[in-house]
Amino acid sequence: MATERPSKLRVFSLNCWGIRFFSQLCTERYEMIGELLGREQHDIVLLQEVWSERDFLFLKRKLSSSHPHTHYFKSGVIGSGLAMFSRHRIQDALLYQYSLNGYPYMLRHGDWFGGKAVGLVIVDISGLKAHVYVTHLHAEYSRAKDEYLPHRTVQSWELLQFVRHTSCGADLVVLGGDLNMHPQDLGNRLLRSHTGLRDCYTETDTFDGCEDGHTLIADNHFTNNHDLVPFEKGIRIDYILMKGSQRVTVKCESLSTTKGPVADKPFPYSDHEALTAELSLLLSEDSRQHGSSGPLAVSEQMDVVTEAHAVVKEGLCQTEALRDKAIRLVLGALLLLLLLLAMAFLPCSCFCSYSTLGLLGAVCMSLLLSGALLYLLFITHIKVLKETEDQMMLTSNELQTKLTGCRLSGSSSFDGSPEL
Amino acid sequence: MATERPSKLRVFSLNCWGIRFFSQLCTERYEMIGELLGREQHDIVLLQEVWSERDFLFLKRKLSSSHPHTHYFKSGVIGSGLAMFSRHRIQDALLYQYSLNGYPYMLRHGDWFGGKAVGLVIVDISGLKAHVYVTHLHAEYSRAKDEYLPHRTVQSWELLQFVRHTSCGADLVVLGGDLNMHPQDLGNRLLRSHTGLRDCYTETDTFDGCEDGHTLIADNHFTNNHDLVPFEKGIRIDYILMKGSQRVTVKCESLSTTKGPVADKPFPYSDHEALTAELSLLLSEDSRQHGSSGPLAVSEQMDVVTEAHAVVKEGLCQTEALRDKAIRLVLGALLLLLLLLAMAFLPCSCFCSYSTLGLLGAVCMSLLLSGALLYLLFITHIKVLKETEDQMMLTSNELQTKLTGCRLSGSSSFDGSPEL
Repeated sequence: MATERPSKLRVFSLNCWGIRFFSQLCTERYEMIGELLGREQHDIVLLQEVWSERDFLFLKRKLSSSHPHTHYFKSGVIGSGLAMFSRHRIQDALLYQYSLNGYPYMLRHGDWFGGKAVGLVIVDISGLKAHVYVTHLHAEYSRAKDEYLPHRTVQSWELLQFVRHTSCGADLVVLGGDLNMHPQDLGNRLLRSHTGLRDCYTETDTFDGCEDGHTLIADNHFTNNHDLVPFEKGIRIDYILMKGSQRVTVKCESLSTTKGPVADKPFPYSDHEALTAELSLLLSEDSRQHGSSGPLAVSEQMDVVTEAHAVVKEGLCQTEALRDKAIRLVLGALLLLLLLLAMAFLPCSCFCSYSTLGLLGAVCMSLLLSGALLYLLFITHIKVLKETEDQMMLTSNELQTKLTGCRLSGSSSFDGSPEL
Repeated sequence: MATERPSKLRVFSLNCWGIRFFSQLCTERYEMIGELLGREQHDIVLLQEVWSERDFLFLKRKLSSSHPHTHYFKSGVIGSGLAMFSRHRIQDALLYQYSLNGYPYMLRHGDWFGGKAVGLVIVDISGLKAHVYVTHLHAEYSRAKDEYLPHRTVQSWELLQFVRHTSCGADLVVLGGDLNMHPQDLGNRLLRSHTGLRDCYTETDTFDGCEDGHTLIADNHFTNNHDLVPFEKGIRIDYILMKGSQRVTVKCESLSTTKGPVADKPFPYSDHEALTAELSLLLSEDSRQHGSSGPLAVSEQMDVVTEAHAVVKEGLCQTEALRDKAIRLVLGALLLLLLLLAMAFLPCSCFCSYSTLGLLGAVCMSLLLSGALLYLLFITHIKVLKETEDQMMLTSNELQTKLTGCRLSGSSSFDGSPEL
């Protein structure tokens, strides 16, 4: 490939809403998605919420000629839901499962059962090494009282750390997926500022899609409009991010979204809108002057880490409170058990039969077991939150060192990437 | 630092056997370990089985002047046990917790409760970027019937993938820890052949230590000689591995181990022997000719992946059998529960009181819950094993492509690193 010869890369991302027996018209929608992908022949297809392997295999068969290279990331109880289809050869794959992902007892939310993760595939695009990431973060069920904010912040931190540490040596980095965060949410700022990834929506030359790039819209057949309040117009939570390297300048030439209803079809592809980005790749000996990504200024990085650290600290307090509740449950159950034992051995003064005592004992044992399991869960979470805090503090110190060095040298154009 | 100017790096690794209230003479041994480290002033200290944060904090205080930079990796229920002390500035840290690590119900083994992981710290050594890894893999409780072999193989795979994908850009790579594998065990060969890491013991110019570099020896006060059978002389399961880069040639000048008893002390530092490696770093524009590490030939890499794949496949079969047992437990408990319900509603024909029925019902519920939890555990394991299989197949295909290319080009000196 000669220097300065431009090349294109078409990237597609969609949250498929593929919960079997729950998501509406799953089979029909996968049929439509398969048709779309076969017709459009994007270079890279990043799918989320492909919860059933059967659906993945259906798409794999359907796209066997257009996208012969695939990877389906497996983790958690029901899988990660992440799938990747490529027209170019996949050289390697790696999965990082997020350490925090909700609670197993929150059955109606269910995020815990999907092993939310970030998947990396290394794709050979005509000799260029593209590191392609696909991810799906914990959902936000209430914006006003978001109990999962610390979990999503830890996930954002782990995502950015994973991207920073595994993208070295890539000619091109692409990240797509459902981040479950608005564009200016903390985790999004954290991710962009510390990886240098740029948002295709804000960078694109031309855009054709929903207003403000929304990917959850009221005009979608499957959307529960109540979920959008107070953002009646819609929300943008699905993204394609990109970054070049010294060898390759990457630019988003066009970005489009689906717009709810699909022509000649009775319903949309999913409850999310799909994104398609057309990226231009420009080879160059040193492409930094062409706008190849660089992280924001160090002080901005410091600010966003400080903000994230506060959220993690708050999450730690909440989790410690939950752990203490679990301890109280264990102690309460133990006390009741002792009381029952005492009653069983009190001569004549029994108020109830041995069988009833046994039944009550079994209830106490269940409480004891539940308390112990919850305790284990929460102390594991505390470990993760503390580890994240430590890593954030290391990064803050490193940024502080850079900032001091920067001020001493008087350089105002200092590129403050901690790693890149 | 001028080109060709040599520099030294002293690395220390020890499994501290720090299980509070279980490991013998824990406090006294930490006192001794602290003294040794303060006196010897190694550049990098890698510790495993520092299970209690209190013990880490004790060492941190004790070494605050000799080793001002530290990181304690937190994960799992009781922690990862991994700690790192450095005389050089730590720039960043990252933790990868292994996806498979035994079973929670194997209480007498207990590995599951420690969140076994690999920790990475990036250390700035006079302008050189050293990626330092510390890890501890699942123990081998029976060599003849090693039920954890698939778990340790998956851990080895995840370790090599983590090292491969996060060490790009490093001037120098060091990995230390308790791998719980003999030198020629599958996981060890997998790790070395796919990362290009070299074993300090086989590479060192001079060696002073136990016979054959053993780190579990009969002559250690804390060793249960029964555990060594049939390797009465000892076993080598602790390692320091190293790798240079194009910029730096790394060489092991000397390696030493402790030899059980410690002069002037009544007992050894731990039930493992400690390792100390003295590495020489030689700066060069292109150090490959100086013996900087390169992975083994592609065909050898293929062979070892194929062997590992077979172990993972076998592990998958075993885990599927366990999952089926869990299903049978759930179904059995459900059947019993239905039987009890029927008995409760049968008029007059009750053989026992409602309280007894309730008690039996509670027992059934416990069985049902246990079965369901085990089912969740095993299907999570199956997901991990399948993901590992997929990644191994990708690597095999990639190696096959390289091998074909290599044969076509007729090059016999082909460097077959898949990633490096």
